[in-house]
Amino acid sequence: MAMFDGQKIQLDHGSGGSASHNLITELFLPAFDNPFLQQMDDSAQLTIGKHRIAFSTDTFVVSPIFFPGGNIGDLAINGTVNDIAMSGARPLYLSVGMVIEEGFSMDSLNIILQSMKKAAQNAGVMIVTGDTKVMPSNKLDGIAINTSGIGVIESDCQISANRAQVGDKIIVSGTIADHGITILTHRDNLMIEGDIQSDTAPLNDLVLQLIAACNDIHVLRDPTRGGITSVLNEVAHQSSVEIEIQEDAVPIKPQISACCELLGLDPFSIANEGKLIAIVPESSVEPSLSVMHNHPLATHAAVIGTIVSDQDPVVYVKTPIGGKRLLSMPVGDQMPRIC
Amino acid sequence: MAMFDGQKIQLDHGSGGSASHNLITELFLPAFDNPFLQQMDDSAQLTIGKHRIAFSTDTFVVSPIFFPGGNIGDLAINGTVNDIAMSGARPLYLSVGMVIEEGFSMDSLNIILQSMKKAAQNAGVMIVTGDTKVMPSNKLDGIAINTSGIGVIESDCQISANRAQVGDKIIVSGTIADHGITILTHRDNLMIEGDIQSDTAPLNDLVLQLIAACNDIHVLRDPTRGGITSVLNEVAHQSSVEIEIQEDAVPIKPQISACCELLGLDPFSIANEGKLIAIVPESSVEPSLSVMHNHPLATHAAVIGTIVSDQDPVVYVKTPIGGKRLLSMPVGDQMPRIC
Repeated sequence: MAMFDGQKIQLDHGSGGSASHNLITELFLPAFDNPFLQQMDDSAQLTIGKHRIAFSTDTFVVSPIFFPGGNIGDLAINGTVNDIAMSGARPLYLSVGMVIEEGFSMDSLNIILQSMKKAAQNAGVMIVTGDTKVMPSNKLDGIAINTSGIGVIESDCQISANRAQVGDKIIVSGTIADHGITILTHRDNLMIEGDIQSDTAPLNDLVLQLIAACNDIHVLRDPTRGGITSVLNEVAHQSSVEIEIQEDAVPIKPQISACCELLGLDPFSIANEGKLIAIVPESSVEPSLSVMHNHPLATHAAVIGTIVSDQDPVVYVKTPIGGKRLLSMPVGDQMPRIC
Repeated sequence: MAMFDGQKIQLDHGSGGSASHNLITELFLPAFDNPFLQQMDDSAQLTIGKHRIAFSTDTFVVSPIFFPGGNIGDLAINGTVNDIAMSGARPLYLSVGMVIEEGFSMDSLNIILQSMKKAAQNAGVMIVTGDTKVMPSNKLDGIAINTSGIGVIESDCQISANRAQVGDKIIVSGTIADHGITILTHRDNLMIEGDIQSDTAPLNDLVLQLIAACNDIHVLRDPTRGGITSVLNEVAHQSSVEIEIQEDAVPIKPQISACCELLGLDPFSIANEGKLIAIVPESSVEPSLSVMHNHPLATHAAVIGTIVSDQDPVVYVKTPIGGKRLLSMPVGDQMPRIC
């Protein structure tokens, strides 16, 4: 706690970058210390009897609540479905905890609920329990939605951010930065040409197909807040490995790339909501890519890098002209309320 | 949805009274329709393989966040522990989803986390997964904490608000209205004499002792928002029974009773955070009371009423002078952010 004495919470503490990381490792982990939490994966892997289950939670405060490609409702369903799926589990049951501002439009609420219904059906999960609170006007900006969920790990896979090994290949399931750039440009009313929309989508079907095709996936993560930069740095630290990424191998839509250049943003650090990073042994690259390229949510999947050594927990990016730059964990992302 | 077209969310929609009830039954249930949600209990009862589990969620937005007897942190742990316990389950694992306002004091956050740690230890549960978001200043008033949780139902008990039967007795585990009156008087700086503090406490140990002593408990509910009035009306409707309560049998501290009289509040509709209502066959009254009177959290347990018929789903209160008044579901409770 000492490092935070007398300080105040800053926006960066919720960014998914190093400020978030410090808050969690210095304040939350010591308080709630237990082996499940220490895993630091997208969901906790637990046991009920002989069953392995995954349990995850996420609160969504995205602004604006309606954006091209989705709204806070389907984002909240897909987000927790994906966190559960990243442990190799089949998501089954979700809870929904809503906090709504007094004066919020019932019509908007109904649109959000219908999106949640559709997203739950689409992902094959049931919303089985809920809670609704109302805060007086001006005490909350609109609506915040927590989804928590339970899934069952049916295979004997062992998937965790601490399992990356030297020689493993890093695959991303599609183009990066779509969600974050959509929210940013829509929020600030930037007039951007071209089709820009959130990639929010449920990845559980893709994950179960991947596991069926190759049962030695080492790591699965969905690069949300902090983008692939945060995920790769977390894996580098949790597995104590050095990661090398080929910059020009990372799929990105031209219009998203142009936006990032225009705004001076690094797309590697921008949030995605329908993509995953898979880290697999070289022998599993072919079957993984084969599954992905035949799945509608991963047609642009590509190998983007390699675990090159177990010397230092760092991430390097090799540029097309042969340069090499360190990809550090972002402190914050200057984009609050991205999810 | 038609009944809400063009309307706006009001504070009463989060009160636990009939406005909340209408919002849930008219908007949420139709959207998320499934048999688990339809149970409308404090937690959903699910199965994982052969195991019966309980899953529950609750978001806490209490104001002020620190109050006599506790703070938002232990309230959030105890609240979800209790919702799980009310299905007869042993709570095991909790998630914590925090949304914090930019500028929030780290020292306050640490006090809250330490209270959560202590409450989790006290209840015998582990916090295994979490999420933290930050909202810009003035977009959220302080902090909101969602806790969700999983428990295992180890006995063959069948506990649900739809199981009350004619002849059953209604037991309350202790004095009512302590939490709500504490928040109200503390928030408004009312100078009240006497010891007034929240009753926030984990009821899981009491519930497991009750189940061990009598395996035919029909209903367990913790009367939080909307107090015992809401719980009794919900049971009356879900079990289609008429309930009669003896007004002078309901335990209440003199100072709480005096406060309610002074403020013109009905203590039956005021929130509790460490009490339960048990509805049991007459033959189980003695063993239930015996367990309660020997448990530190239920020394003032008392039989307060009876399921008198299966004619109409109503709740009556018999007054000491022989009168009889209808105890209707409150619309709202005029006390937002009580939990």
